[in-house]
Amino acid sequence: MIYAIIFGANSYEHEISIVSAIVLKKVLKAKLLFIFCDKNRDFYLIDNAKMNAKTFSSLAYKKEKRLILKQGGFYEKTLFSDKKIECDCCINLVHGKDGEDGKIAALFDFFNIEYIGPRLEASVISYNKEFTKLYAQKVGVKTLPYKILKNYDATSLLSPLDYPCIFKPTRLGSSIGIQILSEASQLDYSLDVAFEFDDELLVEPFIDNIKEYNLAGCMIKDEFVFSIIEEPNKNKFLDFEQKYLCFSSHSEVQEADLSEELKEKLKENFKKIYNPLFKGALIRCDFFIHNDEIYLNEINPNPGSLANYLFKDFSSIIQNFAQNLPHEKQININYSFLHSINGQKGKL
Amino acid sequence: MIYAIIFGANSYEHEISIVSAIVLKKVLKAKLLFIFCDKNRDFYLIDNAKMNAKTFSSLAYKKEKRLILKQGGFYEKTLFSDKKIECDCCINLVHGKDGEDGKIAALFDFFNIEYIGPRLEASVISYNKEFTKLYAQKVGVKTLPYKILKNYDATSLLSPLDYPCIFKPTRLGSSIGIQILSEASQLDYSLDVAFEFDDELLVEPFIDNIKEYNLAGCMIKDEFVFSIIEEPNKNKFLDFEQKYLCFSSHSEVQEADLSEELKEKLKENFKKIYNPLFKGALIRCDFFIHNDEIYLNEINPNPGSLANYLFKDFSSIIQNFAQNLPHEKQININYSFLHSINGQKGKL
Repeated sequence: MIYAIIFGANSYEHEISIVSAIVLKKVLKAKLLFIFCDKNRDFYLIDNAKMNAKTFSSLAYKKEKRLILKQGGFYEKTLFSDKKIECDCCINLVHGKDGEDGKIAALFDFFNIEYIGPRLEASVISYNKEFTKLYAQKVGVKTLPYKILKNYDATSLLSPLDYPCIFKPTRLGSSIGIQILSEASQLDYSLDVAFEFDDELLVEPFIDNIKEYNLAGCMIKDEFVFSIIEEPNKNKFLDFEQKYLCFSSHSEVQEADLSEELKEKLKENFKKIYNPLFKGALIRCDFFIHNDEIYLNEINPNPGSLANYLFKDFSSIIQNFAQNLPHEKQININYSFLHSINGQKGKL
Repeated sequence: MIYAIIFGANSYEHEISIVSAIVLKKVLKAKLLFIFCDKNRDFYLIDNAKMNAKTFSSLAYKKEKRLILKQGGFYEKTLFSDKKIECDCCINLVHGKDGEDGKIAALFDFFNIEYIGPRLEASVISYNKEFTKLYAQKVGVKTLPYKILKNYDATSLLSPLDYPCIFKPTRLGSSIGIQILSEASQLDYSLDVAFEFDDELLVEPFIDNIKEYNLAGCMIKDEFVFSIIEEPNKNKFLDFEQKYLCFSSHSEVQEADLSEELKEKLKENFKKIYNPLFKGALIRCDFFIHNDEIYLNEINPNPGSLANYLFKDFSSIIQNFAQNLPHEKQININYSFLHSINGQKGKL
C-alpha cells in the first residue's frame, strides 16, 4: 500500500497541516509520498528526507518536483509526456479551507482518485457551523442554541446577546478566530475581529467548565471503528510543542473517566452523525456533556494527523480503511437522446 | 468579453447540457468558446462550427483539442509548453451531477477561474433536495412537507405514506427519476426505480393541478435582476423540439397571469433564497402556489441555457454580471508559526 499525503493549501491552517503531515510521517507505518499544495495551489512532490518545517518556511519546497492533477492521479511533467505518480490511496490532510470545505473532495472525485477524507456534501455540512447544526438536528443529535450575526445584514446585529457568549466564525474549521465575550462592552471589537474571518458569525452561550469529550472513528465495511474517548487539554493556546505532541502518539492519551453508559451514548451520537454522510472519512466529533445531556460541538472531518494518538493500531486501521473506500457512482452516457434527434426536423 | 461555456460531464443530464450549450451559442451575443467535458471528464475545446449534436453522438469531439486545467484556466498542450486558452469568464452549463453538485465550482475556485455558476455551498444545498428544505426553512421560505426513505435503512421504508404522493431522488437536479404514485400497490416497483438513482428518496404529497411558477434572476452589485415569471408547460415528457424550444428564446414566453401582489411575494421569496448563498449564479427558482401560500419546489442553480428565454436583454445582463462576480477570499501565509519553531527544542 502506497499512500500520498496531501497537505498545505490556501488555508488559515496551512502551517498546522504541514505539522500534521510531518507527524503522520512518523506514526503511519507504510510507504508514504508527500504532496504539498502551496498557498497558490501548485502541487509539489516533497522528498521524504525533506519533510521538515524549514523546507516550507524557507520556500525550499519550490525546488521539488512540480505535479499536475489529471484523470486518475497526480502526474509529473517530463520532457516528452506526463508520468503518473503511482499510489494506491491519497489521504486528505489539508485542514480548514480547501481541504475541509469540499474542494479537495471535489478534485479527487472529479479526477477519479481514491482517497481518505470527507466527501463533498460531508465537507460543506461540517465546514459551515450553522449547516452542522441543521444537519445534527435532522439526524437527532443535540447542539447548543445559537444565533447568526451577519456582516451584510445590519438587523442581525441588533439582536440582543446574553453574556458570557462565544463567537465563532461560521466557516473556519478550527479554533482560529474564536472569542469569548463576558460583557457587552466587548461587542464592537469582537465583531470587527470575527468579520475579518467570515461574513457570518455564530454565537453560542459560553458555559464555563463545560465538559468536552472527543471521539474519533470511521466505518469500514459497515462496521464502526472507534478511538478511545479523550477529554482534551483545555489550554486554549497551545504552543508549538503542545501542538506537536497533540498530533503525535508520543503523548500518551488517557481514556476519559466516564461511565460506560455515557461512553455508549457518545458512540451512538457519533454514529448518527457519521452514517452515511461521512463514509470515506476518519473524523473526530467533539462533544459537550452538560447536565448529563450530550451536545455536538463540532465535526473535524480531517483531524490533526488523523487523530492517530487516539487509536491503538492506527496503521492497520488505515490500511483496512484504504481497502474499503466508497466510490462515486459513474453514469454511463450512450447518446440515445441525441441519436433520436437525427433525422428529426429542427435538427441541432 | 470572451466567455467559455463548460458543458457535458458525468451527469444524467449530459445530453441536455449539450443541447443547452448549442442553444446558448444562438442566443448569447458575444465571443464564445465551447469547452466540452466528456463522460470520462476529459476536456475538449470544440470548434464553434462543430457545435451540433452529431459532433457528440458520433464521438467526433475526440478529434478536437484536448485541454487541461491548471492554475488560472484551461490550457492546451503544445509540444514545448502549455498554452493558456484566453477567456474572461467561464459559464458553468453542466446540469446535474458534476455541474450542480459542487465539483465544477470547486475546480474553478481551486484553480482561480472567473465563473458564472453556483459556488460550492450553494451547489451542495440546492443539489440535495432535503438540504434545500432545511435551508429554505432557515431563511423563512415554505416548502411542502416531506419524508425521506433510505435504501440503507429498512425502518425508514416502513413509514406509512399518504397517496397520491411524488417520489424524487434526493440528489438529482432535474425531473429524471421522478414518479407519481396514486396507490400503495405501486410502492415496491417505484422504490426499485428510485433507488437506481440515489440511496435516498424524498416523498412529498402530490397535489394535482397545483400552480407552478418559475422565476429566474441574479444579483449584480447588490441589485436584483429578475426575469419575467413563467407558468411552465405541464407536459411532463418533453420531446426534443419542446426541450429545444424550452431553452431558446425563439418560443415566446408569456408572463404568468398573477396579481402584482403575488408576483412581489414570489420575488421576496427568491431574494431570501438567493442572498447571499447564490451570489455568482444566475438561478431559477421553481415555486408552487397553493391556497395563496407560496412554497419553494426546487432551485435550479444552472437552469437550461441559463433561462435566457425569460429575460429581455439576456446578453447585456450576462455581460454586466460577468463583470461583477464574487471572488473567494485568498489567505496570505507567511510561515510565522513555522519560523517561530526554529531554534526551539523539539524542532521538526
